[in-house]
Amino acid sequence: MSEQGVELPMRPPRRGLVIVNTGNGKGKTTAALGLAMRAWGREMRVCVIQFIKGTDRTGEALAARRMGVEWHVTGSGFTWTGDKAEQKRRAVAAWADAQGKIAAGDYDLIVLDEFTYAFEFGWLDANDVIEWLRGNKPPALHLVITGRGAPPELIDYADLVTEMVEVKHPYRNGIAGQPGIEY
Amino acid sequence: MSEQGVELPMRPPRRGLVIVNTGNGKGKTTAALGLAMRAWGREMRVCVIQFIKGTDRTGEALAARRMGVEWHVTGSGFTWTGDKAEQKRRAVAAWADAQGKIAAGDYDLIVLDEFTYAFEFGWLDANDVIEWLRGNKPPALHLVITGRGAPPELIDYADLVTEMVEVKHPYRNGIAGQPGIEY
Repeated sequence: MSEQGVELPMRPPRRGLVIVNTGNGKGKTTAALGLAMRAWGREMRVCVIQFIKGTDRTGEALAARRMGVEWHVTGSGFTWTGDKAEQKRRAVAAWADAQGKIAAGDYDLIVLDEFTYAFEFGWLDANDVIEWLRGNKPPALHLVITGRGAPPELIDYADLVTEMVEVKHPYRNGIAGQPGIEY
Repeated sequence: MSEQGVELPMRPPRRGLVIVNTGNGKGKTTAALGLAMRAWGREMRVCVIQFIKGTDRTGEALAARRMGVEWHVTGSGFTWTGDKAEQKRRAVAAWADAQGKIAAGDYDLIVLDEFTYAFEFGWLDANDVIEWLRGNKPPALHLVITGRGAPPELIDYADLVTEMVEVKHPYRNGIAGQPGIEY
């Protein structure tokens, strides 16, 4: 009890976590989807940004639409077509889209799916990105980043890092990816 | 073209995968939720069975309710209270519930969440469970099993096994689990 009067039960302000799912195994994006679903179950405001430009007819995109979760396939998403300058330009543009969503403060949880490729391919500098996040990520925002080969700077910055390790994979036995499971 | 007439395009029958998420890291249950969400996005029939008896007020249970995904907290779920015989009896009963759901053929994807503890604590025999699955799992059913310490027999039986490895965990820095992220 403080001297000023009745003390309310302490409820610490939410600490927005930086969560990284990396490694060569399955489940990086899938676990990010699970976090999105869990947060959505608590009526948190969720936005998923897919950096690898793909179809919006995946199971997850269809689910997001049914749920009303904001699903953003960056119009200028990462690509391996075009020359290096073009790839880099598109990566910078996609990151600018994401920066806008992050800084806006309109979300409780944002997923940057397959974002680590920007570092792997040298399109973005990890230190620049992290410096920007340190200065601009709303403190309560949970940020989930997926993709192989998370750089050490990102692991250092993150609160929670999980490596998905492939123990056994059905492709090895000639089973193809299936809708509803793989995509 | 066969001699009998027009040949329809080959579409292989769905191969129901056995997917195991194991390891000491985060993301085992969460990635199973992501699979459930993806499958639900494709209007597949999904059932999640939680073996560790808990609240049905988690973010994921609330999400499942909003989505209309069947969410089953086994009434006789695993417990560490009571004596060994009581624990075993409850595990057998919980597995019987799951067997009913699996054999019924009413689902496209079933998640057995935290199921591996039954083996770890000696409540169920992995070989018996796998033998039953080999004989009774509908071929097209995708089955997802999560939990630490998946036994070798289960890994051998599974099609896809991922180990979630903890690289960095916020509890180490004194940050507590938060709603919408951890549960």
